[in-house]
Amino acid sequence: MDMHDLTRSLQVKNDSKIVMLVGDGLGGLPQKPGGLTELETAKTPNLDALAKRGVQGGSIPVKPGIAPGSGPGHLGLFGYDPLEYVIGRGALEATGIGFELGPKDVAIRGNFCTLGPDGKITDRRAGRISSDESAPLAIKLREVKIPGVEVFVEPVKEHRFVVVLRGEGLGGNVHDTDPQATGVPPLVPKAGDAASEKTAKAAAEFVKQAEQLLKGQPKANGLTLRGFSPKPALPSYEEVYGLKAAAIAVYPMYKGLARLVGMDIIGKAQTLDEQMQVLEENWKKYDFFFIHFKYTDSTGEDGNFDAKVKRTEELDACIPRITALDPTVLIVTGDHSTPSFLKSHSWHPVPTLLVSDCCRFDNATEFSERASRVGGLGQFEAKYLMMLALSNAGRMGKYGA
Amino acid sequence: MDMHDLTRSLQVKNDSKIVMLVGDGLGGLPQKPGGLTELETAKTPNLDALAKRGVQGGSIPVKPGIAPGSGPGHLGLFGYDPLEYVIGRGALEATGIGFELGPKDVAIRGNFCTLGPDGKITDRRAGRISSDESAPLAIKLREVKIPGVEVFVEPVKEHRFVVVLRGEGLGGNVHDTDPQATGVPPLVPKAGDAASEKTAKAAAEFVKQAEQLLKGQPKANGLTLRGFSPKPALPSYEEVYGLKAAAIAVYPMYKGLARLVGMDIIGKAQTLDEQMQVLEENWKKYDFFFIHFKYTDSTGEDGNFDAKVKRTEELDACIPRITALDPTVLIVTGDHSTPSFLKSHSWHPVPTLLVSDCCRFDNATEFSERASRVGGLGQFEAKYLMMLALSNAGRMGKYGA
Repeated sequence: MDMHDLTRSLQVKNDSKIVMLVGDGLGGLPQKPGGLTELETAKTPNLDALAKRGVQGGSIPVKPGIAPGSGPGHLGLFGYDPLEYVIGRGALEATGIGFELGPKDVAIRGNFCTLGPDGKITDRRAGRISSDESAPLAIKLREVKIPGVEVFVEPVKEHRFVVVLRGEGLGGNVHDTDPQATGVPPLVPKAGDAASEKTAKAAAEFVKQAEQLLKGQPKANGLTLRGFSPKPALPSYEEVYGLKAAAIAVYPMYKGLARLVGMDIIGKAQTLDEQMQVLEENWKKYDFFFIHFKYTDSTGEDGNFDAKVKRTEELDACIPRITALDPTVLIVTGDHSTPSFLKSHSWHPVPTLLVSDCCRFDNATEFSERASRVGGLGQFEAKYLMMLALSNAGRMGKYGA
Repeated sequence: MDMHDLTRSLQVKNDSKIVMLVGDGLGGLPQKPGGLTELETAKTPNLDALAKRGVQGGSIPVKPGIAPGSGPGHLGLFGYDPLEYVIGRGALEATGIGFELGPKDVAIRGNFCTLGPDGKITDRRAGRISSDESAPLAIKLREVKIPGVEVFVEPVKEHRFVVVLRGEGLGGNVHDTDPQATGVPPLVPKAGDAASEKTAKAAAEFVKQAEQLLKGQPKANGLTLRGFSPKPALPSYEEVYGLKAAAIAVYPMYKGLARLVGMDIIGKAQTLDEQMQVLEENWKKYDFFFIHFKYTDSTGEDGNFDAKVKRTEELDACIPRITALDPTVLIVTGDHSTPSFLKSHSWHPVPTLLVSDCCRFDNATEFSERASRVGGLGQFEAKYLMMLALSNAGRMGKYGA
């Protein structure tokens, strides 16, 4: 049974407010066995105070042992089974740069490559071309004209760019043109089903004109296309939870993910302080607020233990401005762990704290990996977090009589 | 994979005895953060002694965040996935008043309503008619005669009653006739599939004759029908577990639920002491005993913390009579939590204790929410409890070679 069939049928409306504060990559590891993690090292008086009246647990982003990317990590927190709802690579790439996909769109991840005189690939990443060099080329590709199809091209980073084809009858099932090898030419775009024939044709036309536009470029004189994908079909927060939801995020990727589930993107905050101000200003207008803090992840990715500790303390410092608003349910969590020890996303359960008047307090005295391990929420899959949020907010009726 | 496919293929017969003592709504909450729950406040020397030699955990009735009704709550404990096995409202209502459904039955929940002279509903609950007024009217409806269909009508409470249609070829898929609004007439019973055409016709005839019988009634001169449902198709304890099972319950609802999974209802106990006597008298005749204690739930529903504490102590006091029989496996649990703080069923995991010679003792010193949170069973979905019971009783073979 789809959990959203349950939340749809059991949802109750009331005046409660739910805040989900996401410290990206929040969970960590000690620098050596027996040591303290970043969160355990950080001085977090505000989070620890919340821990005393809340309930903790370890959120498993996808399944035990699975380290997720930002897409599945957030889908889980939002209550969308990340194994069921898959965001195609093209759509995720477009979302990540803030391109809002529409229902007639097919998003594609493009890679510049180097072609030899015989049309065969000599470098799949265009000689690790810099963003400075590649961005003008991506913008040049906007000159491509395809009858009946609107074309958008956006630079991303280094050899990467995004193409969006917009038009009627564009199916999203087209095979990658990257042969994953050098010494062979890019593949011809090939439809995986009849509904995607028009897309494959448009993509072939795009490649043809693009190669003309790139002629003579020393590095990026060719391209491959990957991850053709339509706008992901995610039911909205309003529909599945009955929540009017807002996202307060700084980075395009997280705004984009929030948009995909129908949240309003509010404010133009660039700092956590500004995010708090946006929260305060919009408090009356929404039922649910998703607040995203990036730097617990990026410092972890850098392998910088001390910097992650500092960023965690920064996250802690914003708590009083949230609690001053007296949310019915306050959740502090992460979309995955990013231990600086690993310099990457990991599979470890994420310390997760839920505070409400009717959570089953677990007598923890701090918010940490240690406390969450024996907390009252146990270890649970992230996809259940929203159901816990709703029930703690009195927004879920009883299942069955 | 259906867990019952496993229990069917792995079941082993032996002389073991399993007792499942269900304190309805057992789990609770403290009155304020940091305080003790009802179970933690209650003096429970016998349960605490069991805790020292057993293993505890938190049983999640359905899924995290879902508060179940009695039906899904008990199905979970009985090992039937409550999201897979859904008992229709009519069938549950019939079960709740002790009406034993047969294979040719369709059960329907009836509501008396008030109709204006134009046949439109003016009050969907017949002016909140009292049970004293409505019961004779429900009984009067037994005069309805439908060729080829046997008709049963049972009063329930206030505006509610139960209708059971019994006959060949009566499908259970008929839409509700309650328009969920006033100012419109009741809907005509409409079949949802071809197999239910006969049922819809019989229901229409029932309504026609019933309205004649109710003519002139000031409040209850009409009716709506909801939750058409056949007898739920639940495989029996005997078949899925190889257990000869008995239920010792006071209230019709729990007897009814136990009957649905093929348990024998034994004794006519009205008190816990009498239930213990029934247990002792029938000890040799069954492999499995379900004992239901209602008052930990009803006191919770009343919001009466102290009364729930007292009832919990009453539950504790019956333990020596059970242990004196030396059951192979003794389980103490609840179908859900009913914190007096919330005055309702809740989603919180239920403290669950399993005692056998081969459980993995977890060194707890008391039976409580606190101890179960860090107990050896962890947090688990209730539907797995029966498999644990069977294996601890030596009644499950090895899976695979």
